Amino acid sequence: MIDKLINDIKAKNAPIVVGLDPMLKFVPDYIKQEKFNNFGVGTKGAAEAILEYNKGIVDAVYDLVPAVKPQIAMYEQFGVDGLIAFKKTVDYCKEKGLTVIGDIKRGDIGSTSEAYAVGHLSKVEIGGELFEGFNEDFATVNPYLGYDGIKPFVDVCRKEKKGIFILVKTSNPSSGEFQDRLIDGKPLYEHVAEKVNEWGADFVGQSGYSYVGAVVGATYPEMGAALRKVMPRAYILVPGYGAQGGKGKDLKPFFNSDGLGAIVNSSRGIIAAYQQEKYASFGERGYADAARAAVIDMREDIASAL
Amino acid sequence: MIDKLINDIKAKNAPIVVGLDPMLKFVPDYIKQEKFNNFGVGTKGAAEAILEYNKGIVDAVYDLVPAVKPQIAMYEQFGVDGLIAFKKTVDYCKEKGLTVIGDIKRGDIGSTSEAYAVGHLSKVEIGGELFEGFNEDFATVNPYLGYDGIKPFVDVCRKEKKGIFILVKTSNPSSGEFQDRLIDGKPLYEHVAEKVNEWGADFVGQSGYSYVGAVVGATYPEMGAALRKVMPRAYILVPGYGAQGGKGKDLKPFFNSDGLGAIVNSSRGIIAAYQQEKYASFGERGYADAARAAVIDMREDIASAL
Repeated sequence: MIDKLINDIKAKNAPIVVGLDPMLKFVPDYIKQEKFNNFGVGTKGAAEAILEYNKGIVDAVYDLVPAVKPQIAMYEQFGVDGLIAFKKTVDYCKEKGLTVIGDIKRGDIGSTSEAYAVGHLSKVEIGGELFEGFNEDFATVNPYLGYDGIKPFVDVCRKEKKGIFILVKTSNPSSGEFQDRLIDGKPLYEHVAEKVNEWGADFVGQSGYSYVGAVVGATYPEMGAALRKVMPRAYILVPGYGAQGGKGKDLKPFFNSDGLGAIVNSSRGIIAAYQQEKYASFGERGYADAARAAVIDMREDIASAL
Repeated sequence: MIDKLINDIKAKNAPIVVGLDPMLKFVPDYIKQEKFNNFGVGTKGAAEAILEYNKGIVDAVYDLVPAVKPQIAMYEQFGVDGLIAFKKTVDYCKEKGLTVIGDIKRGDIGSTSEAYAVGHLSKVEIGGELFEGFNEDFATVNPYLGYDGIKPFVDVCRKEKKGIFILVKTSNPSSGEFQDRLIDGKPLYEHVAEKVNEWGADFVGQSGYSYVGAVVGATYPEMGAALRKVMPRAYILVPGYGAQGGKGKDLKPFFNSDGLGAIVNSSRGIIAAYQQEKYASFGERGYADAARAAVIDMREDIASAL
């Protein structure tokens, strides 16, 4: 799956992942009204609205980008109805040939992480048969519990040829509170990065990149440069571009000299582009076209920076 | 909610939480067969089986314990059907007067943590009205992203009078890989504990205990003793008793001198008690009575240790 992702990044010349993090305030009123009329004002109506909104964006950008990253929290807030929309979003994106990175940031003790890994990246055994839960292609994983919490994901990925991105240095302002603290002269995130490199060392695709990747925020380009060297074979998923403040010129340190090694996420900067002044002329009925225009601009911003 | 939990711990003389982590291999065959016959062999049948199994356990123990802790991964592995069973389990336990601790270990950047907090501990606004997602009473939270990822939970808890337990020192064997690393002469987990104490300092119930608690594994009693002092007002949720190796005599350091301050979780040691030699005479049709017997034994084990 890492090889498919890289092939698609090359073919589309776009190391870009579109974050499908649909807050209800991003969804155009005409979509909300239609779904509220049909399914009621409630979690079902909201879930149907975000699904419809997602489909419009996916239809508008799937030929331009290799991957999408639905953030499960944005669905989970609507309870079961939201998670139905999450699953339908995953399936719809896969039908369009997109690689789906489930941004789930799960992580627990061994047997529990195994359940998450099975539910998100593999199939669960019931009565001797196999059934799928959410079935994304990649998942993000939290390292705080140590290798016990990571290994079940790696084992499942090995079987399914899927992958994970482990949180190393996150994009948010307070990420340094623990991640930057020095241990033996090096920040915690660098220790985590060394482990990411070790855990993925013997699980590498034909591309030369590992199925075990990392998350490093675009908002910390200097750390990105250092981490790029610590984990040469890890693909880096880079959130924080756009709305969180990361810019194209900040991205170069995350890439290797082969022009590969990183994939940059933008969420609201793309999916809610029509709400920005720059793309306001598209109007709310042009929200999907505005997203497409934002992807094209982002592609150029990154290409000019590399 | 922390006050209700503490009142119930006192009233039932049981600082015990039953972990509702139903692996399918724990569910008696007669339940699985009935549900597979009615709902098919698949995620729906499996989810109905674990829900029925849970209800049996809850009916057998709700008068003995103050709280349950469903581990959402064990439901999430079955996809949407599993999460329907999770929600029904939460609701069933609340109907029985139990405090429900959602063991979700979520944590993300601010806006995303807010979505998790809303989905699990509050209500989501849709079209000007409020609707519930999963609606547990407490949730477990991962601190790796720093306060950005915690604050939305604290804010929601303040509004709803609910609480969180932040992962400090987890019960699994590799928890030390990052958590035990020394920063300025103190392990990372102790730095997290200091923050837990700080974050919860101005959010304290009539009981004197904070709505912001901590998770510290029973498998590390010496660390529990140190952490008890660092976070005097934090309730400590203690996993790892029983099947993971923690024993009653290990639990004393987690409690304050008032006999309060900790609540000990046991999952498979209770819910799958009938599969242990000690409780085998109950048989699989007596699985709920076996769970009750295991709770009574655990209560005595803890009482004799304190």
